[in-house]
Amino acid sequence: MKIIPGGVCAAQGFSASGVHCGIRKNRSKKDLALIYSKVPAAAAAVYTTNLVKGAPLTVTRQHLENGVAQAVICNSGNANTCNANGIEVAETICDLLSGEIGVAAEDVIVSSTGVIGQPLSLEPFQAGIPELVKSLSEDGSDAAAEAILTTDLVKKEIAVEFEIDGKVCHIGGIAKGSGMIHPNMATMLVFITSDVAISAPMLKAALQSDVQNTFNMLSIDGDTSTNDMVSVLANGLAGNAEITREGQDFSAFMKALNTVTVHLCRSIAGDGEGATKLLECRVSGADTLETAKTVAKSVVCSSLLKAAMFGADANWGRVLCAIGYSGAELDVSKVKVEFVSPAGEILVCENGSGVDFSEEKAKKILLEKEIEIRVSVGSGAFSASAWGCDLSYDYVKINGDYRT
Amino acid sequence: MKIIPGGVCAAQGFSASGVHCGIRKNRSKKDLALIYSKVPAAAAAVYTTNLVKGAPLTVTRQHLENGVAQAVICNSGNANTCNANGIEVAETICDLLSGEIGVAAEDVIVSSTGVIGQPLSLEPFQAGIPELVKSLSEDGSDAAAEAILTTDLVKKEIAVEFEIDGKVCHIGGIAKGSGMIHPNMATMLVFITSDVAISAPMLKAALQSDVQNTFNMLSIDGDTSTNDMVSVLANGLAGNAEITREGQDFSAFMKALNTVTVHLCRSIAGDGEGATKLLECRVSGADTLETAKTVAKSVVCSSLLKAAMFGADANWGRVLCAIGYSGAELDVSKVKVEFVSPAGEILVCENGSGVDFSEEKAKKILLEKEIEIRVSVGSGAFSASAWGCDLSYDYVKINGDYRT
Repeated sequence: MKIIPGGVCAAQGFSASGVHCGIRKNRSKKDLALIYSKVPAAAAAVYTTNLVKGAPLTVTRQHLENGVAQAVICNSGNANTCNANGIEVAETICDLLSGEIGVAAEDVIVSSTGVIGQPLSLEPFQAGIPELVKSLSEDGSDAAAEAILTTDLVKKEIAVEFEIDGKVCHIGGIAKGSGMIHPNMATMLVFITSDVAISAPMLKAALQSDVQNTFNMLSIDGDTSTNDMVSVLANGLAGNAEITREGQDFSAFMKALNTVTVHLCRSIAGDGEGATKLLECRVSGADTLETAKTVAKSVVCSSLLKAAMFGADANWGRVLCAIGYSGAELDVSKVKVEFVSPAGEILVCENGSGVDFSEEKAKKILLEKEIEIRVSVGSGAFSASAWGCDLSYDYVKINGDYRT
Repeated sequence: MKIIPGGVCAAQGFSASGVHCGIRKNRSKKDLALIYSKVPAAAAAVYTTNLVKGAPLTVTRQHLENGVAQAVICNSGNANTCNANGIEVAETICDLLSGEIGVAAEDVIVSSTGVIGQPLSLEPFQAGIPELVKSLSEDGSDAAAEAILTTDLVKKEIAVEFEIDGKVCHIGGIAKGSGMIHPNMATMLVFITSDVAISAPMLKAALQSDVQNTFNMLSIDGDTSTNDMVSVLANGLAGNAEITREGQDFSAFMKALNTVTVHLCRSIAGDGEGATKLLECRVSGADTLETAKTVAKSVVCSSLLKAAMFGADANWGRVLCAIGYSGAELDVSKVKVEFVSPAGEILVCENGSGVDFSEEKAKKILLEKEIEIRVSVGSGAFSASAWGCDLSYDYVKINGDYRT
């Protein structure tokens, strides 16, 4: 497997585009993205667990009931959530695209990110969709990746090439995370494309299994957005024998999918609101997978630890504290903690108690941009990772200073 | 019932003191507190749910097995947690106090707050306990309240007077929350005293019931400390017929206890780390108490909402978002949200959707120091409150800048 350029257009038969259509006032900021497969594709998606769900998610869920889609449209600048007419607006967006591109409205995945509770006007869509379709290009992944961003600092894009059944296959993806100045925009959106031939049920199984260990192990600030969605389209143009059950081919697909999703997770975490560092907590030695995951997520979610990492403070007591309140059952007296970064690694806690360590060396390690918090909780066989970011002044500034 | 001065010494037979004994380097900061009842008292406590527990909690739990205590000793500056010899140190502190004051070591409640994982030396206790006992005074509540603080900005103290069985009774309390500059000190400690005659089992029942709706509904930053403890002593000197079962007298006691605990909750929330505002979320109309509590706590714990409150931004979408991911089962289309403060009240969301409101008026309301987020989730009979604080630059500064 190798990493290649091209993002969501790396897989055969996919094109994409991104334009400014007027949802955002700033004309230099693209606000509408399109991903298109020239043939219908198996499709699956997972959605936010928030009880308050954006209207586009409700419409997309209906459209994906048959496991087929051919296009993805996504706007930034307005979440189309908590609006009285949200469903109608989302459906009309699909109709408008359908009329322009010749794909059934039911084969469109629709998505929005932005402010909650403000009516979304259809005018920008009426004006922008023709241009959006006209701009479709096999080099369009960049433009689409840009259009779905709110004020994330960097585009998030990746593609991989691998083989199944002797055929060259591809999976690519783009994502937006949370690096926003406007409020209510902390939505995570991920769009993945592939040319692998895989049945819709197996695609759904692959996605649902993968997100448990990737996007569901990612936290910027503990707030679960109303509009989160991860979708995947697989159009079969790679020509492999269709994957319809578990086995070697499915495993190869899962492995490639995981490479894409882990990369996007890390990209989103590292570009979290106000983040100066990517944090990864790797837990090993757990008696169950659930324990490993619970501990890892509790550590990367701790506000106290996140603030300590911002200050490059080797405050391992906060790691222990977060392990202790995680809810996982484990023997605290077996816990071991190390901090790891490109600058080295350092043991700070063993058997649940502190060990002597060089503050100077720890500081050097923690001043890096990517920090691994390596935790061993015993001699069990299970391990897991979770991703997050530090808590900085800018997080407060971004989320507190709006409108003041 | 009326609020009176005196704190933990308001109840008959209690005295208290606070001294500097040398655990902290700063000689002007008291670091050792004592509360003493001249007769043995019924006693109960609740402890952190963190799996990592401070050694003093383990020792106190043993001492309270018989439901009797006569003294409380508490140091600040070191949590005596994650130390290999922590239990032995905590037991020796009780022994030292026992030798000086003539109370059995098993009748001492011991408590510590401060840095985790640093050995706690006994020398300051050997030197300080004699002076601590000599300083005991019926005016000593202030000194004790001061000695348990780390760098909270204000002392937290209250007492109430009420009647049971025709007798004048008292409950008083002191607390420390989290307003600290040093790390790992976000421990909540609450010490309550009363002269009510109540059996140990009923006292335990009263405390356990009350904390479910008070201290367990309080969140500064979602991090549950290793050393949290709430304890209560009731020495019976008010002379009422001992409360041994539910009924009118028990209800009167519960009501007075709740007045003390709600006051201390609000004091702790308003003095949270870096806090500029006290937030209270009052939820009504829920079908179950659990739903009301879950929603209230989710709202005050949302980092996004906390940051918005810091910026006085009427960002009701974040309230809806936090309600949605709380895990409570409810009909989002029935949710109503108002912001309330001494400057007025304003409706911002009804039937789950936004309503037109004056941004100017909302801003004025949110610039106050105490904000109520009033949520109605339907027409059910249950309601609940949760307390928290806003998320400010100073939270990050306090928790991130240590040692840098």
